[in-house]
Amino acid sequence: MAKQKKAPRPKAETPKGFRDYFGAEVTERAEMLQKIAAVYHRYGFDALESSAVETVEALGKFLPDVDRPNEGVFAWQESDEDGHGDWLALRYDLTAPLARVYAQHRNDLPTPYRRYAMGPVWRNEKPGPGRFRQFYQCDADTVGAPSVAADAEICAMLADCLEEVGIPRGDYVIRVNNRKVLNGVLEVMGLEEGAQRDAVLRTIDKFDKVGESGVRELLGKGRLDASGAYIDGVGLSDDQAAPVLAFLTSKGGDAVETLTNLRAAVGASQIGAEGVQELETIAELVAAQGYGPDRIEIDPSVVRGLGYYTGPVFEAELTFEILDEKGRKRQFGSVSGGGRYDDLVKRFTGQAVPATGVSIGVDRLLAALHAKGRTDTATEGPVVVTVMDRDRMADYQDMATELRRAGQRAEVYLGNPKNFGNQLKYADKRASPIAIIQGGDEKERGVVQIKDLILGAKIAENATLEEWKERPSQYEVPRDQMLEKVREILATYGGDDA
Amino acid sequence: MAKQKKAPRPKAETPKGFRDYFGAEVTERAEMLQKIAAVYHRYGFDALESSAVETVEALGKFLPDVDRPNEGVFAWQESDEDGHGDWLALRYDLTAPLARVYAQHRNDLPTPYRRYAMGPVWRNEKPGPGRFRQFYQCDADTVGAPSVAADAEICAMLADCLEEVGIPRGDYVIRVNNRKVLNGVLEVMGLEEGAQRDAVLRTIDKFDKVGESGVRELLGKGRLDASGAYIDGVGLSDDQAAPVLAFLTSKGGDAVETLTNLRAAVGASQIGAEGVQELETIAELVAAQGYGPDRIEIDPSVVRGLGYYTGPVFEAELTFEILDEKGRKRQFGSVSGGGRYDDLVKRFTGQAVPATGVSIGVDRLLAALHAKGRTDTATEGPVVVTVMDRDRMADYQDMATELRRAGQRAEVYLGNPKNFGNQLKYADKRASPIAIIQGGDEKERGVVQIKDLILGAKIAENATLEEWKERPSQYEVPRDQMLEKVREILATYGGDDA
Repeated sequence: MAKQKKAPRPKAETPKGFRDYFGAEVTERAEMLQKIAAVYHRYGFDALESSAVETVEALGKFLPDVDRPNEGVFAWQESDEDGHGDWLALRYDLTAPLARVYAQHRNDLPTPYRRYAMGPVWRNEKPGPGRFRQFYQCDADTVGAPSVAADAEICAMLADCLEEVGIPRGDYVIRVNNRKVLNGVLEVMGLEEGAQRDAVLRTIDKFDKVGESGVRELLGKGRLDASGAYIDGVGLSDDQAAPVLAFLTSKGGDAVETLTNLRAAVGASQIGAEGVQELETIAELVAAQGYGPDRIEIDPSVVRGLGYYTGPVFEAELTFEILDEKGRKRQFGSVSGGGRYDDLVKRFTGQAVPATGVSIGVDRLLAALHAKGRTDTATEGPVVVTVMDRDRMADYQDMATELRRAGQRAEVYLGNPKNFGNQLKYADKRASPIAIIQGGDEKERGVVQIKDLILGAKIAENATLEEWKERPSQYEVPRDQMLEKVREILATYGGDDA
Repeated sequence: MAKQKKAPRPKAETPKGFRDYFGAEVTERAEMLQKIAAVYHRYGFDALESSAVETVEALGKFLPDVDRPNEGVFAWQESDEDGHGDWLALRYDLTAPLARVYAQHRNDLPTPYRRYAMGPVWRNEKPGPGRFRQFYQCDADTVGAPSVAADAEICAMLADCLEEVGIPRGDYVIRVNNRKVLNGVLEVMGLEEGAQRDAVLRTIDKFDKVGESGVRELLGKGRLDASGAYIDGVGLSDDQAAPVLAFLTSKGGDAVETLTNLRAAVGASQIGAEGVQELETIAELVAAQGYGPDRIEIDPSVVRGLGYYTGPVFEAELTFEILDEKGRKRQFGSVSGGGRYDDLVKRFTGQAVPATGVSIGVDRLLAALHAKGRTDTATEGPVVVTVMDRDRMADYQDMATELRRAGQRAEVYLGNPKNFGNQLKYADKRASPIAIIQGGDEKERGVVQIKDLILGAKIAENATLEEWKERPSQYEVPRDQMLEKVREILATYGGDDA
């Protein structure tokens, strides 16, 4: 009889574009989310956790990123009894689910409804370096508040969040623009809704990348891009394009000057005047709460999301420089964006509901803190109680228990204890600050050996013989003084883990 | 020209079997997860967050629930350039991904690898009342530790977790059984691996529901179930079935008696003897750490997961009674389960890797705390600053800002301020403890009105006229004493929100 062929072993891999997060990667993010949630909460926002899975119908197509309008979702069809059920999909952001939740529960929810949400979202896009198909978002939105006081509040809250997680004043700025001002400019230009207007909007969105001259070319005849390809232009004359460029470059030395420039750019347009007035009100409101232009400023060059939002648009940028992968200095850039969008709920109910909100990119924010060396580097590894005699596991567990009850992270080595060197290698891999050792001899004498692994590593690296003699890295203490000694050692490294 | 037909509005609904969580539902769970994570961390476990999406190949089929072996996953096929990519799926638990992660990263991870993970998992099963297709799991596992000291540690840790989240000693018990003992019993019975043995295992799993006599019938000729349907039995004679029943009912008055009964049940089986020895070691280890049989006990009637695990099996049960939906008293039951499974990583690497772990059902645990009235009921609503004059938003924002800076949750009413009654209704819906009021007259006089909404509600409900006179629910104070007065009022309700 032929030998049965074995099924091939499955590959131990995440799907392409997905990754795992280990240890501090998880806890640092969790701590950051907690800090942000605390600020959101203090501002009166309530937590919401909607399901990760939505019907495709409810999600709709509201991706804010005009650069990638064809972003996909992960979707599948339910198989009901007839074999054809609803199409379901993983949420691609936290805003579309909010619209569904508000429409579904609006009779039970307060109005205005201030809610925050944090959690993973999924995008079925081509993965790339540093670009994943599952990532965290951390949003706060106010639904049902027509006043720009709601936008101003969100800008102030965003500033508080950044400072709360460790970005000091001076290292960030929140820039505010307004889609209505742009609408005024387009109105003055005589651009009605339609293909040409959409093309202008898409072009403006490239302002960040191609700058003023690039936008000028793209609004006109077109432009050679960096790869050498020729990008067709919108086909406006220089005169026609002028108001758009005036708008984008109207930032002055202070808010008064900027607002004056914007008023000139929108001319007689009513919607444009309204937009400028809103920006002025936001500037006044945040200033009255102590948020000056060093923290929140009017800046018409903010274009991210301008095509998506319907009123004020805001973006938080970190202003310090970091070194990129090639060692070149560059600004860290945007970590958060948001704005007013008044159409999302209308899809469901037919009624326009004003809404404004912000999304914080926690992963980018964490990267920024790492780049500045501002993350907590406290001793996080556990004290490792080594196993010299496997029949005395109860003794070793007792030591670990005593340490834990005192709030100290601790564990007994649970691998094969035969090779003591492996136990110390394990402790090293865990970044353990201390190893506890008690062989038969020590047990008889009622003592334990306490090995200071941090000092030991330092000595091994670069200590002089004098230092070695002066401060040995291993201590013998009576068993009942173990906890005390562990605390003493850890105190010299600036903190225990309790 | 015919009028263009409008697309129908999307339904604002979660997919069937999914739900949203609001406010305290979210924050209470988050707090519970934090508390459990702190215990896991103290025991030396490291956080892991694996991706929610796995390849179907990597997930395999390892659902622990033998009752529902055909449980589905939510899966879809990637469309690559050729139109047929990998099948991907949402994780159905946190154990299968751990096996994949350990196999993938084993060269970089410490061994033993203690990890904890918490997050949603998804099951494509038929939804029912209280049964959702997305729910939270909260797991801790030790991979690469062959010793039952690892199992004992997890039982102790589970006890600590339950006490940490608010289940006092005496209200829970962790019961431990061992699959190897059952294997010994099956060996003694002469049941080789195969269909009959599997049928016996499935029958044992029903012990919780049908009890001793039910299992006896099901091992024999069969049995009428509650619905009147006849369930075929395994077909063993009473004599043949006796060892299984002896095993399931061998719990004695103390561990010594139970272990003696188990030794009798496994007879000369070597694997059985090994299993009994493991249980004895676990009992000794946890006792040495101060966990007596009031908290962790050997109990061979624990059958949940016995078909899935390969060694020790544990289950945490809450022992207090609650009233069910029909007002009948019943035990709350299981909130956590786990055990040793040595085959999961082998799928990937060909090498058996010992592993043991536990999963805590946080949603059930939260329900238990609610049933016992042990959740935090502090005043959570924000102070609401009402808007009497919409031109003075800056003043009102300033008040909210002052309160927030002092750590007090506060917000300005951001709906249409025209109808003051709506503002108070809003405050009521938000469970606000206090409303702040400042009209033009108060502004001129430099004062604010502070309305104690909790007291106001009480007075409206049942206070006598004397009480009303003695303690009015609205106070006028100078603007610069607003914060102080708010704190004073909140202090009478036992805490601010800082």
